[in-house]
Amino acid sequence: MKRVVTFGEIMLRLAPEGYYRFVQAKSYGATYGGGEANVAVSLAGFGIDAAFVTKLPKHEIGQGAVNNLREFAVDTSLIVRGGDRVGIYFLEKGASQRPSKVIYDRAHSAIAAAAESDFDWDKIFQGADWFHFTGITPALSDSAAEICLAACKAARAKGVTVSCDLNYRVNLWSREKAGEVMSKLMEFVDVCISNEEDAFDVFGIKASGSDVTSGIINNDGYKEVASALIKRFELKQAAITLRESIFCVINCI
Amino acid sequence: MKRVVTFGEIMLRLAPEGYYRFVQAKSYGATYGGGEANVAVSLAGFGIDAAFVTKLPKHEIGQGAVNNLREFAVDTSLIVRGGDRVGIYFLEKGASQRPSKVIYDRAHSAIAAAAESDFDWDKIFQGADWFHFTGITPALSDSAAEICLAACKAARAKGVTVSCDLNYRVNLWSREKAGEVMSKLMEFVDVCISNEEDAFDVFGIKASGSDVTSGIINNDGYKEVASALIKRFELKQAAITLRESIFCVINCI
Amino acid sequence: MKRVVTFGEIMLRLAPEGYYRFVQAKSYGATYGGGEANVAVSLAGFGIDAAFVTKLPKHEIGQGAVNNLREFAVDTSLIVRGGDRVGIYFLEKGASQRPSKVIYDRAHSAIAAAAESDFDWDKIFQGADWFHFTGITPALSDSAAEICLAACKAARAKGVTVSCDLNYRVNLWSREKAGEVMSKLMEFVDVCISNEEDAFDVFGIKASGSDVTSGIINNDGYKEVASALIKRFELKQAAITLRESIFCVINCI
Amino acid sequence: MKRVVTFGEIMLRLAPEGYYRFVQAKSYGATYGGGEANVAVSLAGFGIDAAFVTKLPKHEIGQGAVNNLREFAVDTSLIVRGGDRVGIYFLEKGASQRPSKVIYDRAHSAIAAAAESDFDWDKIFQGADWFHFTGITPALSDSAAEICLAACKAARAKGVTVSCDLNYRVNLWSREKAGEVMSKLMEFVDVCISNEEDAFDVFGIKASGSDVTSGIINNDGYKEVASALIKRFELKQAAITLRESIFCVINCI
Amino acid sequence: MKRVVTFGEIMLRLAPEGYYRFVQAKSYGATYGGGEANVAVSLAGFGIDAAFVTKLPKHEIGQGAVNNLREFAVDTSLIVRGGDRVGIYFLEKGASQRPSKVIYDRAHSAIAAAAESDFDWDKIFQGADWFHFTGITPALSDSAAEICLAACKAARAKGVTVSCDLNYRVNLWSREKAGEVMSKLMEFVDVCISNEEDAFDVFGIKASGSDVTSGIINNDGYKEVASALIKRFELKQAAITLRESIFCVINCI
Amino acid sequence: MKRVVTFGEIMLRLAPEGYYRFVQAKSYGATYGGGEANVAVSLAGFGIDAAFVTKLPKHEIGQGAVNNLREFAVDTSLIVRGGDRVGIYFLEKGASQRPSKVIYDRAHSAIAAAAESDFDWDKIFQGADWFHFTGITPALSDSAAEICLAACKAARAKGVTVSCDLNYRVNLWSREKAGEVMSKLMEFVDVCISNEEDAFDVFGIKASGSDVTSGIINNDGYKEVASALIKRFELKQAAITLRESIFCVINCI
Repeated sequence: MKRVVTFGEIMLRLAPEGYYRFVQAKSYGATYGGGEANVAVSLAGFGIDAAFVTKLPKHEIGQGAVNNLREFAVDTSLIVRGGDRVGIYFLEKGASQRPSKVIYDRAHSAIAAAAESDFDWDKIFQGADWFHFTGITPALSDSAAEICLAACKAARAKGVTVSCDLNYRVNLWSREKAGEVMSKLMEFVDVCISNEEDAFDVFGIKASGSDVTSGIINNDGYKEVASALIKRFELKQAAITLRESIFCVINCI
Repeated sequence: MKRVVTFGEIMLRLAPEGYYRFVQAKSYGATYGGGEANVAVSLAGFGIDAAFVTKLPKHEIGQGAVNNLREFAVDTSLIVRGGDRVGIYFLEKGASQRPSKVIYDRAHSAIAAAAESDFDWDKIFQGADWFHFTGITPALSDSAAEICLAACKAARAKGVTVSCDLNYRVNLWSREKAGEVMSKLMEFVDVCISNEEDAFDVFGIKASGSDVTSGIINNDGYKEVASALIKRFELKQAAITLRESIFCVINCI
Repeated sequence: MKRVVTFGEIMLRLAPEGYYRFVQAKSYGATYGGGEANVAVSLAGFGIDAAFVTKLPKHEIGQGAVNNLREFAVDTSLIVRGGDRVGIYFLEKGASQRPSKVIYDRAHSAIAAAAESDFDWDKIFQGADWFHFTGITPALSDSAAEICLAACKAARAKGVTVSCDLNYRVNLWSREKAGEVMSKLMEFVDVCISNEEDAFDVFGIKASGSDVTSGIINNDGYKEVASALIKRFELKQAAITLRESIFCVINCI
Repeated sequence: MKRVVTFGEIMLRLAPEGYYRFVQAKSYGATYGGGEANVAVSLAGFGIDAAFVTKLPKHEIGQGAVNNLREFAVDTSLIVRGGDRVGIYFLEKGASQRPSKVIYDRAHSAIAAAAESDFDWDKIFQGADWFHFTGITPALSDSAAEICLAACKAARAKGVTVSCDLNYRVNLWSREKAGEVMSKLMEFVDVCISNEEDAFDVFGIKASGSDVTSGIINNDGYKEVASALIKRFELKQAAITLRESIFCVINCI
Repeated sequence: MKRVVTFGEIMLRLAPEGYYRFVQAKSYGATYGGGEANVAVSLAGFGIDAAFVTKLPKHEIGQGAVNNLREFAVDTSLIVRGGDRVGIYFLEKGASQRPSKVIYDRAHSAIAAAAESDFDWDKIFQGADWFHFTGITPALSDSAAEICLAACKAARAKGVTVSCDLNYRVNLWSREKAGEVMSKLMEFVDVCISNEEDAFDVFGIKASGSDVTSGIINNDGYKEVASALIKRFELKQAAITLRESIFCVINCI
Repeated sequence: MKRVVTFGEIMLRLAPEGYYRFVQAKSYGATYGGGEANVAVSLAGFGIDAAFVTKLPKHEIGQGAVNNLREFAVDTSLIVRGGDRVGIYFLEKGASQRPSKVIYDRAHSAIAAAAESDFDWDKIFQGADWFHFTGITPALSDSAAEICLAACKAARAKGVTVSCDLNYRVNLWSREKAGEVMSKLMEFVDVCISNEEDAFDVFGIKASGSDVTSGIINNDGYKEVASALIKRFELKQAAITLRESIFCVINCI
């Protein structure tokens, strides 16, 4: 990888200081984050030339997101400035048996409301050899999905490797819509990252003998899912991620 | 006044802790406020039975606004719960020669998106003898303007005194639209609060010999404006407010 | 339950911020709490009409306690205002092998110094069908015990169900005094909540074969204790609570 | 001065962080202070051997007061440990036109409840050549006044210079009681510090032609008051302090 | 200006939170700053391509300085990494009649200990058309002065305009040494910024009739000083800065 | 033990607030600490007369260290004031699988740069019966090692028991230098505290059959090491400390 471009939404994250609950919070710690922006920050941290592409308002909340990315060495020169608002998510950290909670307030953000004409992908991909996005980006709005498609086509045309993390979000779109939109995008994807649930939710691909809800894990099943993804979409590579939900025992045996 | 009902939007106010600027802020102090909600809090502080009416999401950011009003003894039992988001405004406190800044992120809030059918004004005005709103509320959206009109009509029908602070906000609507909408509402208003600029911006009412931008103040002019308002809208009373912009000299002689 | 009234002391809780010890603390987080107030807050949180009755000074530390209860939807309209001080407790949170510490500074509080004539129980119980107090309240002072008795008698006379959590506090009174006072109050109690130790400390009621200090738990013994309480005081119901002291293993296996 | 001993009460000062009001405070900054303790801290800061004498509970809130004095080099080895509580005062800092507020919660403190036998003044004054107290200390309780008297007598007997700042506090005692108690103590005082109001409130000494409430200041009057104090109590010296109440103009011209 | 390079030391600034004094501070706000770095941040804020050159340790305190510059859009790619420590200055903000205090702990910093061979000025000035430094940089150490000279020579050779703010610091070097070193550097300077005191301290240039210590300001004198600087060092331009020391009256009239 | 004197360096400890990393830190919690100072604080906490000896700058960062020791009842009257800087260490607290990190910035501190003549050990040991130092102190600089030797000789001459914790620090000196310097000091040591690694690193003393890096613990080996230390240096006592590195499992089973 010489230069990686990631594309998506970066949101203002507001989390009550300490372990206060939302209804008790008098102060919120403010940072910025989002799936594709986090990938760019991580890559920059490993010394890789990484740019993040999005649309952010010209006002200072938008500027705060830009500055935060710059702080961690991400190239922000390709970010389009305009639109009304920065998406927000509120995070209440869990404690003991109380789980964490997230409240999204991301509708109508600048990137969700962006137009295809806001982005000149030929220019964006100059010098890049890798493009990464996730299934969250096309789920933001119809226009965001169109922009993704334009990006993918431009990347393919320029020989830029395209990777996509399926990342299905039930609050943003239906399984049917996700399947329809993502199938079109997958034509241009070289590397697909998924977990077992996303592959099923979005594409109906399921390993024989696995049962996500029961927690039964079938290692051979992951290979089946990866193979099915590679075959259906003619991928170069597929990666299946596995995150265990571990019961937390802080505070007591 | 036995019982006052105020109606409008309550927003989450996020202000950087200390005197940090937006682009430096790592932490925001969180309170809730809005013109009509503040009136309810003030009246409750003077021991008057005060209820605030709005629409707020069922989630915990909406609940935070409810709890905050309750803390200061405002009756929140008439608040409609539903919708997606709580309006937000970001406030950067000024310091020395640097002025304060406000960034609004209030579009698409639950109250701006509320429907006329969300509010049963006959029930809301039970036991009330005063209804207060400001020109900000009908400016939020067309539906918010309709809800205001329904409220005003119900108040008039029940013999509830109606007061309105013109409070023209250039970012929310044009002078033309404001004039058109507010003129309809004024038919039901008994007491109008305004300053000289708002009376001109919204209704074109201007004192002879005054010049707002030059800072020349003509005390007789205020009486003219008040008289004109009373005459045009058959008001019981009109109040003209005057806030001087005083040059701040903290830090030096 | 249509409406619940709880009665007791609400204290200002001062806990060093973070995990600082008392002797290091430069800042205390301030909240308000107390056994019966917490019950009212919890019930209100479940949507039940809950009022808390106490006496609090008219000054702003007293008002802070009122506002805090209101924030969580507790009816504070029956709180008597007057007296000199709000009881305080200092809490040092434990960490790792260091246990939590509590220093009480509650003597001479407004509620401990209140007079029987401060409370008009007939009025307080209007519309209520449940009254709850704990063994902490009569332990505060002789006059507090008399107020409890007056409350219990008024509740019985109006057909209000009375529940009492024994909650014996060795720092507040002797076992002898507790037994004497609580026995008189139990004549009017319908539902008694206790744990095995409190039943023994206050009334000498002990299950055969149990040994609190050794940690040996005898489940049948709880039934014996509950039966004995019901029989002796002609209760409608008795509940035995059980809280295990679990050894904390944060920080290491 | 080789070694100074001051005697009085040191209180826990709890002030809301920032400029929050009491009813908004979620956090209190905690320091320790009191008239005589502050004198000891100031003298120690100038390099003078200074000891502070009081009674403080053995618990960690009491220890916090001791540590705080030690931090600023005050000798705390003569402090008697015992009693129940540390006096508290709550301070709300004023801002703009809002004045500061103080709520005292100092009754029943360890020093107010101390007995004469708690203090061995012969031992306390070993090596000392100056003893300082203020009119606040004898106002705390009858026993505190007796301890003051015992201290004054012991100081006189050992040739230790005694200074007293009248510091009349209307919330603690009446003018009559203050006059009676302070007159006895003044027999042993060598240096008296006062302002014009205190001299009048406690001893009825008034300059001809001055009027405290009108703000008219009569410089010759101060000399009259000082002369009258010296004459009546056979003092070595009297000092009259003058603190102007200056109107604050922060925020505006 | 197409691209500006500034060169000097960036220090970790540690200032007690709020208005606490050094001896009370339990917490320090941490930012990074220095004369030449601040110039680069300001220029970047105006949209000018600005790079800052220095030497910073590879460890994370050094990285924090780099990240902070990046956040504000300064090009940090030319910073040399190595050496042991980041210079520190402690700042106690003044309040009311208490002045601010600064304690420097900058000796032995990476840049003060840097070698001439650490910097390849031909490479550094690629694409640059302006070079700025201040009199603080050569004052840091003999080697820092040599590096400055090498930078100035390289700039002159490449036709890069050189500006220098005299900025005499009495704690870092004597007037004699400053005069000797700065005179050599001035051979390569095109634009000199100074105030009246610095011109006198470093070069003995003084306006007729002015008296810095008395506060008497002679406007014609500034022109004399500027002319003298231009003449002696064959400058293109000279700027005289004037900062009035205004007596602060916050808190009282 | 009647009175213990400990000697070494006390540093300013700067740790990011909360669990922020160095590169994220905007605020550092400030305390003071060091091996020998911590011993003095602990002894004082147990009520033992404990003095700490070091050299600290006269400025207020130095004074902060003095005040902090005084707060915890350590005698600071023997501390020499002078020199340029207080040693600093930056501490990033670990969290979950991320380990803690320490960055030292202690070179050129006042104590590292102190001269033998700064300390009058005969005077320092007046009234003392125990002297404690660690292997960190002589590692600070050649002059610090000489001061240690002078202290040890004076202690022996006055019959003061000398204890030393080997505490080998690889960043401060080589094994060869440590062995050479510590061997000279051990002539005057009565009680040596060590762990198995330090005994080997400094003196090459190793238990048969133990392997520190493999984690195999051989209890008999500790006795061997202790016996070897006692024999080689004619000690009165040797103590071997053992700190297990326990794998942390906070957050998950």
